[in-house]
Amino acid sequence: MLTLKALAERFGLPYRGDPGTPVHGIGTLANAGPGQLAFLANGKYAGQLADTKASVVVLSEAEADACPCACLISANPYTSFALISVLFDDGDDLPTGVHPTAVIAASAAVAPGARIGPYTVVGERAVIAAGAQLHAHTHVGTDCVVGEDCVLMPKVTLVKRVRLGRRVRVHSGAVLGADGFGIAFHDGHWTKIAQLGGVAIGDDCEIGANTTIDRGAIEDTVLENDVRLDNQIQIGHNVRIGAHTAIAGCVAVAGSTRIGRWCLIGGAAGIVGHIEIGDRITVGAMSLVTHSLREPGEYASGTPIQPKGEWRRNAARFARLDAMARELNTLKKSRD
Amino acid sequence: MLTLKALAERFGLPYRGDPGTPVHGIGTLANAGPGQLAFLANGKYAGQLADTKASVVVLSEAEADACPCACLISANPYTSFALISVLFDDGDDLPTGVHPTAVIAASAAVAPGARIGPYTVVGERAVIAAGAQLHAHTHVGTDCVVGEDCVLMPKVTLVKRVRLGRRVRVHSGAVLGADGFGIAFHDGHWTKIAQLGGVAIGDDCEIGANTTIDRGAIEDTVLENDVRLDNQIQIGHNVRIGAHTAIAGCVAVAGSTRIGRWCLIGGAAGIVGHIEIGDRITVGAMSLVTHSLREPGEYASGTPIQPKGEWRRNAARFARLDAMARELNTLKKSRD
Amino acid sequence: MLTLKALAERFGLPYRGDPGTPVHGIGTLANAGPGQLAFLANGKYAGQLADTKASVVVLSEAEADACPCACLISANPYTSFALISVLFDDGDDLPTGVHPTAVIAASAAVAPGARIGPYTVVGERAVIAAGAQLHAHTHVGTDCVVGEDCVLMPKVTLVKRVRLGRRVRVHSGAVLGADGFGIAFHDGHWTKIAQLGGVAIGDDCEIGANTTIDRGAIEDTVLENDVRLDNQIQIGHNVRIGAHTAIAGCVAVAGSTRIGRWCLIGGAAGIVGHIEIGDRITVGAMSLVTHSLREPGEYASGTPIQPKGEWRRNAARFARLDAMARELNTLKKSRD
Repeated sequence: MLTLKALAERFGLPYRGDPGTPVHGIGTLANAGPGQLAFLANGKYAGQLADTKASVVVLSEAEADACPCACLISANPYTSFALISVLFDDGDDLPTGVHPTAVIAASAAVAPGARIGPYTVVGERAVIAAGAQLHAHTHVGTDCVVGEDCVLMPKVTLVKRVRLGRRVRVHSGAVLGADGFGIAFHDGHWTKIAQLGGVAIGDDCEIGANTTIDRGAIEDTVLENDVRLDNQIQIGHNVRIGAHTAIAGCVAVAGSTRIGRWCLIGGAAGIVGHIEIGDRITVGAMSLVTHSLREPGEYASGTPIQPKGEWRRNAARFARLDAMARELNTLKKSRD
Repeated sequence: MLTLKALAERFGLPYRGDPGTPVHGIGTLANAGPGQLAFLANGKYAGQLADTKASVVVLSEAEADACPCACLISANPYTSFALISVLFDDGDDLPTGVHPTAVIAASAAVAPGARIGPYTVVGERAVIAAGAQLHAHTHVGTDCVVGEDCVLMPKVTLVKRVRLGRRVRVHSGAVLGADGFGIAFHDGHWTKIAQLGGVAIGDDCEIGANTTIDRGAIEDTVLENDVRLDNQIQIGHNVRIGAHTAIAGCVAVAGSTRIGRWCLIGGAAGIVGHIEIGDRITVGAMSLVTHSLREPGEYASGTPIQPKGEWRRNAARFARLDAMARELNTLKKSRD
Repeated sequence: MLTLKALAERFGLPYRGDPGTPVHGIGTLANAGPGQLAFLANGKYAGQLADTKASVVVLSEAEADACPCACLISANPYTSFALISVLFDDGDDLPTGVHPTAVIAASAAVAPGARIGPYTVVGERAVIAAGAQLHAHTHVGTDCVVGEDCVLMPKVTLVKRVRLGRRVRVHSGAVLGADGFGIAFHDGHWTKIAQLGGVAIGDDCEIGANTTIDRGAIEDTVLENDVRLDNQIQIGHNVRIGAHTAIAGCVAVAGSTRIGRWCLIGGAAGIVGHIEIGDRITVGAMSLVTHSLREPGEYASGTPIQPKGEWRRNAARFARLDAMARELNTLKKSRD
């Protein structure tokens, strides 16, 4: 059983309250009960502090006086909560060893200490490093490498020439290394361009459920270290994403685009192909990026959500906005 | 063999024509042939009625005189057609029992009368109720519950702590209960927040192919009863969706947002996190909802589709719309 | 080992340089080394030609004089490169025959010469033609047909009544033939409309990873020959897509819409249901098509990406654009 004092010491945080307060789980400010730890990081929820039934709250010094129970004080309560939360994760480790139903190619190399679940398939010349976990129904195709301590959740597919660094976590349904979308029109029909590259994923990346990352046409599609992708993201062939960039769900990045480091891409945004996005750039949800962005900062596109009648009238005006601007210019000139 | 009279009695609908008219299948107004039943619910297709070769048409009383064949008269032909259509579904039931290739954890509980297909995996402490069907390659992870008469189509994945009510239908490739996208920046890199909640799905929900519903960070992600999700939808952690809400394909809902009852969300719309959408709200296709909406009604955002040259000129003007508005104000003032 | 001369003869291209120049692989202009062939098709990369270390470059006649190494001259270097690229693909063919773990229904017909991988499932009355490849974990459901020389990559799912022509290539995670999203409101809750149609895919189509194509409600959802779909596309029930149309990733097409031949649909575009898009129409990335488009040409919608502060001011003005237009009209009248 963890106690307030044990948590305070482990994470180097000052605390208030009975050092022996037991903490056996996590709850929200609104619904936590005795023995649970909650956190307050978003001012929006500050009103819930007074009535919390949590035993311990992680919060900033400014909120500590208003806390009705024991607390841990942090300059960054959200991050402190993140670090504490993993102590309460029950994990889901496979047993060490290879499930008897796994189909592993003779030329594949599986390290002792890897954990391979039922109905997994490991292809020719694939390498599975020590500590890696392949959950049920995962497919590690030809010439793929799964680095140390990677976790492939059920039904992950690495198609071909996909190399994962260490501690990469890939969620169910993700497909890495499928053919990039390369076609050329020839003689009245489409002809396919062979996709001869691979996918290279750095250390500590996370890839969300049903996300797709195509392999490169000639060279590799690359994610540098510590890139975090949410669910249902599409990364086209030969894209390169810089270290520490985080991308929210349903974003589409077209081929050969480069995204810098420490970028934050909002949900369902689109980024066209063959452009460059610099470091420390934030793109708003559902924005479409049609040209390179080099200056750090926040960018957005789109129009506000409105009641449909209002929106329809405004949208109709947009359709002749250029004419309207020219009329305005004429008026200005006539006045001058 | 069904007859006109049998259908009329079963669904309480008046009819015209020979009561013994046989009905052995369903067709469209334009292409149905003898023995087939068609329906007319959308005025757009009324012109096809005169030439239909169907044996029976389901339609409103107002259209009955124009019908060249037997008909069933309904105040709501679309709904009556829906109810009739299921009589012609050939189903696709698995045989009762557990396929010998299924891998079922010792601590899981599978009810007699459940149907478990080939290459399914059922994890620790999972519960499969009577009448539930797990088609091939489904994965029911640790601490998941599949309620009575649920159908999990091939390759559905319930990752962890997912509880389905009764009669829930989940389509192929859907992933429920993957880690929510919770990360915090710490010491120069991202640190993961453990996702300790689950997913709770009410009775009679339907979840489309390749849709993803993440499990909650602390509490559960919730779908109330009779929620209908199309394909490729992304539901972030701790979202709550009210009963009878229907969401079209490719919609993205970010974390901790609440959507009310009887809402209709159009295809590929986006809804940001931590907001509230009230009951009976309709959101247009590809609209982005950036703040809470409380008043029932229809909402939309975006600009009209236009020939690219026109669009480009209008979009360029949008980029300085604020300046244009200020110029207009200056002109107005100078006139006053 | 291929040589410059062998390639020139095989593809009918003039060349410059030593005919015996060996070519053992493909590289980019910037990074190719000795023995590798590169191409120059996009003017953007012309500056890389002078310093290329490739042994052979495929390029247009106009660029040939500037080429520092041997070259193949083509009126369409991109297409010539496409045709050459496939010579360097290492393929990934399964061995002929049926893997012992495949579960094949007694009523299914598998041609001699088909290749069936591990943990595949083939349902009742399904037909697998000669030369077809079903990679690991594929599911070919009831009444499906896989034509000659089709390739189903790992974890493809054909749910029900899906018929593929010849040489169709379907990528991992794609789901074809799931229930269309057909529901009708009845008596306080949603009732499901049986989805009685199928999916018919023509010859030479390609379907991207995690793409979904629903089966029709009554008639089939149809892709004509040589349709090319990228990843994570959603095709609703009863959509029809004309021959040679190519659709980029993350596009959503709602039910019963018809798209013509030789169309190009940009990434993440949305197309509402029950409309018609004619032949030779190009739709811009992330555009929303809300009505039928008949005139060939390019179409787009949306607003430009901008720094967030500027965008916010412009978007606020959009929200009252109609009022602004009326003010402008008043000013015009008062001047006249």
